[in-house]
Amino acid sequence: MSDFPKFVQINEEGPREGFQFEKGPIPTARKVELIDALSETGLNHIQVASFVNPKRVPGWADADEVVESYRRRSGVHYTALWLNTKGLERALSHGNRLDIGGSFSLTASEKFLARNQQSSLEDNVARAHDTLRLYKQHGIPLKRAGIMAAFGCNFEGEIPHQRVLDMIQQLLDICAEHGMQPEVFSLADTMAWATPKSVRELVGKVRARWPDMTLSLHLHDTRGMGVANAYAGLEMGVAIYDSTVAGLGGCPFAAHKGAAGNVCTEDLVFMLDEMGIATGIDLDKLIAVAQLAENIVGHPLPGSVKMGGSLKALREKLH
Amino acid sequence: MSDFPKFVQINEEGPREGFQFEKGPIPTARKVELIDALSETGLNHIQVASFVNPKRVPGWADADEVVESYRRRSGVHYTALWLNTKGLERALSHGNRLDIGGSFSLTASEKFLARNQQSSLEDNVARAHDTLRLYKQHGIPLKRAGIMAAFGCNFEGEIPHQRVLDMIQQLLDICAEHGMQPEVFSLADTMAWATPKSVRELVGKVRARWPDMTLSLHLHDTRGMGVANAYAGLEMGVAIYDSTVAGLGGCPFAAHKGAAGNVCTEDLVFMLDEMGIATGIDLDKLIAVAQLAENIVGHPLPGSVKMGGSLKALREKLH
Repeated sequence: MSDFPKFVQINEEGPREGFQFEKGPIPTARKVELIDALSETGLNHIQVASFVNPKRVPGWADADEVVESYRRRSGVHYTALWLNTKGLERALSHGNRLDIGGSFSLTASEKFLARNQQSSLEDNVARAHDTLRLYKQHGIPLKRAGIMAAFGCNFEGEIPHQRVLDMIQQLLDICAEHGMQPEVFSLADTMAWATPKSVRELVGKVRARWPDMTLSLHLHDTRGMGVANAYAGLEMGVAIYDSTVAGLGGCPFAAHKGAAGNVCTEDLVFMLDEMGIATGIDLDKLIAVAQLAENIVGHPLPGSVKMGGSLKALREKLH
Repeated sequence: MSDFPKFVQINEEGPREGFQFEKGPIPTARKVELIDALSETGLNHIQVASFVNPKRVPGWADADEVVESYRRRSGVHYTALWLNTKGLERALSHGNRLDIGGSFSLTASEKFLARNQQSSLEDNVARAHDTLRLYKQHGIPLKRAGIMAAFGCNFEGEIPHQRVLDMIQQLLDICAEHGMQPEVFSLADTMAWATPKSVRELVGKVRARWPDMTLSLHLHDTRGMGVANAYAGLEMGVAIYDSTVAGLGGCPFAAHKGAAGNVCTEDLVFMLDEMGIATGIDLDKLIAVAQLAENIVGHPLPGSVKMGGSLKALREKLH
């Protein structure tokens, strides 16, 4: 139990994942409203937009406008996602509005790559080199490298742990070729195959081989395991998690219709709060934002604590 | 990791909790339809009805009719809930239709007792004695004893672990006075205050003091912790869980409107399946019953796997 981290860093991805996933259309002003509300909760990393092809992801056709419109709050890192040079260039054009941190990933499933990005493992590697060259050229620090579909794939099935380990080595080799080193290493359960047991096992194997690597987990809740998987990560000392307020989002390219989205930020923060692990986030403010998110998308969202209520609020009422 | 049980016993409480909670009215035939469908999934303990005051719980006004109507499947234990002599007598009148196992509980929160049962701790203990006398008189074996509100209370706040331990001792003393010994000892997170950490801590303390006690957990998911708490229980070797298909139900007397119900059976079975822990339950059949449950109550229910789908089904599709 003493291995639990004392502080957990939450990367809020609700705006980016959510507005990518929602059929909408959601007015730009309401997207900005959500980002501004999130900025007031104590969250200090918020992924606010996705610079992707608007034909494939119409929900982010207004990414440039969103990024120009929110109130920048000091101490909050506003990040964005891009998948290619064009996307990065769009992000760079908002250099004074965003924290441009480099990231890249390899995908552990060839079949998912083919479906999700019309790509192959070889392309994936070639693109990684291009991406790092681009980062170098623009002086962008490499914040994060990751493995997508690290726990299993709806199109390919099980992903052997050895393949993930080999791919991490490959990823580190690619970084080394460019004289770079990612600050954080992310394992993504892109299609919700992980269980607490497989989180423990895979994280354990990665830790055993690279004991000094700073790990983060990107977890989906499609099969209800999100919070339990995060707990298993905590037991293994993982102290960085991606999550989305109210459980917004989900991968629009996954095989199932019932994509339940990412693990829910406020449910995760509730667990951390109650376990005495600091996050810097005000849970009751966050619950209000989760309710706002439901109002913005116009339908119920999956998180539980926004209905059940925080214990902090209850305790205050009782005393 | 090697402490995980090899087999987990699931007590399905969906019909009893669900139809108690739902505003309905739900036709008797549909209640019976759910019970019959659950009987075909491999579940071998199903709590099918509640013999309680129909004025307080109108959803169970038809308990006698339900109990007379389902198809008894061999190997399945059909149980019912009662809270007093009158309820027990109603259950006993269906002796050939039900597995009458004795149970009783003490409640760790005086304030919850007052609100939920218009009772006090003293009444609670006096009633326990009455109940055990009644069991003895009717030759009913004592299957289960438990502590309600063991992890916290919406009306009282934190429940000190020491109080729970003292109450377990008190409960064992009461049993001993009547020459009885419960087969299983249940800790109930009646108002969803538990976290994986508090499950580990409290179960650890109970185990340390009574190493041979067979424990079970009754978990609610109101704050999204249900599956994570069950996982923490597994880590502590707990091998008996109450749950409800599709997450049906919730305590109608709790202080919050957003009662998300009990931990969801199919989500729990999904985790167990994927961790290699046997349950005897066919997950895909259970998912179909969860979808049926939604159809019967006429609104979405909280479980995730019924939307996300099982991995077993996906694997079969891929091979």
